[in-house]
Amino acid sequence: MKDFAPVSSLSAVHALLQSMPTADEKAIALWAAREPQLTKPAGSLGRLEEISRFLCAWQGRHPPRLENVRARVYAGNHGVAALGVSAFPAEVTVQMVQNYQHGGAAINQLCKTFAIELAAESLDLDRPTADFTKGPAMSEAECVAAMATGMRAAEDGVDLLILGEMGIGNTASAAAISHGLFGGAAADWTGRGTGVDDQHLKIKIDVVGRGVQVNRSDDPLQILRCLGGRELAAMAGAVLAARHRRIPVLLDGYVCTAAAAVLHAADPHALDHCLVAHASVEPGHRRLVAQLGKRPLLDMDMRLGEGSGAALAVGLVRAAAACHTGMATFAEAGVSDKH
Amino acid sequence: MKDFAPVSSLSAVHALLQSMPTADEKAIALWAAREPQLTKPAGSLGRLEEISRFLCAWQGRHPPRLENVRARVYAGNHGVAALGVSAFPAEVTVQMVQNYQHGGAAINQLCKTFAIELAAESLDLDRPTADFTKGPAMSEAECVAAMATGMRAAEDGVDLLILGEMGIGNTASAAAISHGLFGGAAADWTGRGTGVDDQHLKIKIDVVGRGVQVNRSDDPLQILRCLGGRELAAMAGAVLAARHRRIPVLLDGYVCTAAAAVLHAADPHALDHCLVAHASVEPGHRRLVAQLGKRPLLDMDMRLGEGSGAALAVGLVRAAAACHTGMATFAEAGVSDKH
Repeated sequence: MKDFAPVSSLSAVHALLQSMPTADEKAIALWAAREPQLTKPAGSLGRLEEISRFLCAWQGRHPPRLENVRARVYAGNHGVAALGVSAFPAEVTVQMVQNYQHGGAAINQLCKTFAIELAAESLDLDRPTADFTKGPAMSEAECVAAMATGMRAAEDGVDLLILGEMGIGNTASAAAISHGLFGGAAADWTGRGTGVDDQHLKIKIDVVGRGVQVNRSDDPLQILRCLGGRELAAMAGAVLAARHRRIPVLLDGYVCTAAAAVLHAADPHALDHCLVAHASVEPGHRRLVAQLGKRPLLDMDMRLGEGSGAALAVGLVRAAAACHTGMATFAEAGVSDKH
Repeated sequence: MKDFAPVSSLSAVHALLQSMPTADEKAIALWAAREPQLTKPAGSLGRLEEISRFLCAWQGRHPPRLENVRARVYAGNHGVAALGVSAFPAEVTVQMVQNYQHGGAAINQLCKTFAIELAAESLDLDRPTADFTKGPAMSEAECVAAMATGMRAAEDGVDLLILGEMGIGNTASAAAISHGLFGGAAADWTGRGTGVDDQHLKIKIDVVGRGVQVNRSDDPLQILRCLGGRELAAMAGAVLAARHRRIPVLLDGYVCTAAAAVLHAADPHALDHCLVAHASVEPGHRRLVAQLGKRPLLDMDMRLGEGSGAALAVGLVRAAAACHTGMATFAEAGVSDKH
């Protein structure tokens, strides 16, 4: 893969969407030759078997490797935060980035638990995106710059990429992107986020609906530019670059999945190298995941963001790789196979 | 707790069921005082919050501790295996125990992944239980001896206990116990186990139905003795002893949960210190879990047994404890709370 940074325009991003590598059939064949020999009834590890196959297919490697698991949490500020769409004040975005840097957030504990290398990246927090009810949230240059930042996460040698975000107001952005891409009503896609009350939920639904009306486009990347935030653009960039670098990705909750859905709307195979790590409580997330034809790995009633659900699923991915790679075969163990 | 081994009779087991400790309210209060101060929207870690509370409640300790996580896999042979209820020959039980001892099974890889101390214990494999379609599977002495073996797993210093089993034919035993305890039809409780075909599934349903007809009792411990196997009795003993020693337990799939369900039938609070780690593909398991009023942590389409689903869930439990214990508070991190 050529160097992604800098990608200079959204049409360069479209070009990357048209040259995505496919699954590695040779690695899949090696997986398929080994898996039925392992000392267990065929299929009895269920989704763990799917995960180890997925790793081989998208790493292009058998056995799969999980030495370098990386998490990136992108932080952005949103013009619509001033409209009352969040239960928390906008200054929490920068405060939480400091919390990530000092090791105090949930994502820090989860990354420690599952041996994940973590960094948080602030994206121009002192320049919130524009209020998308009045026009595009970002200029093309702003959107492309954020995507290029995300693309840098997909470095050679990374075995698995975990994406997360922080941005007061950004579930409104996720809802607007989902509504813009997949239709329906604004209320279908809009939830309580960090916990807004009924009055502010009504405001949020109105903001989402007006944002989509003002920013209609048939180009998914324009939907991202007009309704997204910088952290969403960064995650979309990271997902696309990871595909080109053969790095499988774990998507987190609503905001992360909405960012990735932009790529899916451009090409329905664009997220084949991604698993949705968990089903968020946010009702729009389930609807969105269904649109993508994905089944989340976990359903833990979580709604924190910051990559927490994706980091939690790394335990499952490590377990899947360990079983496929480390188990004895029937022949090695002297175990009788099925009648 | 007095020493459990040897428990000399099933009436001694009944006595233990009548003297179970309850949740530790002081540890719960300490959990409840800390959790809302952590730098996240209240409730946003969902079931991870439930899990850390559960650990405090049943360890009787705040913060919870997970230094010594222990897995025990009990192996038994079944008279009904000769009737054609399994896709695998009965000698696989002893072969798989050797596989556990040599580190080649799925459970070995999972225990390595999540830092779980593992041992497999064979329970008189050269003496299968009696064919339960003809009468009780075990004498009282056999059942009590197996329960006492399981009770020894719950040693002081164990922070979390993972239970699993191996025993060709034992999903027939799980189905018979579930049917015997909770009624319905034999077919409701009987699935394909390791993968029997349609013809052998019919045989298995018939075996389960006849077993229950021949061994009716209102005493759940008699149901265990008459329809169980030694590995099921051991798991039931381990669950009960763990309660007395304040060790939380992760239950695995159908066979493990059926063994534990015996205690629930004796006292509906007997499994309050247990979580069901995963929902097995085996259809009887979902039905059984609903009877217990539990919600499995994972749903990974697994049906292997040997404690594999429970070991996999240890990652979630470690993550839950790490978040509750390690996160910064709003005050420590200088993060603004909700509006």
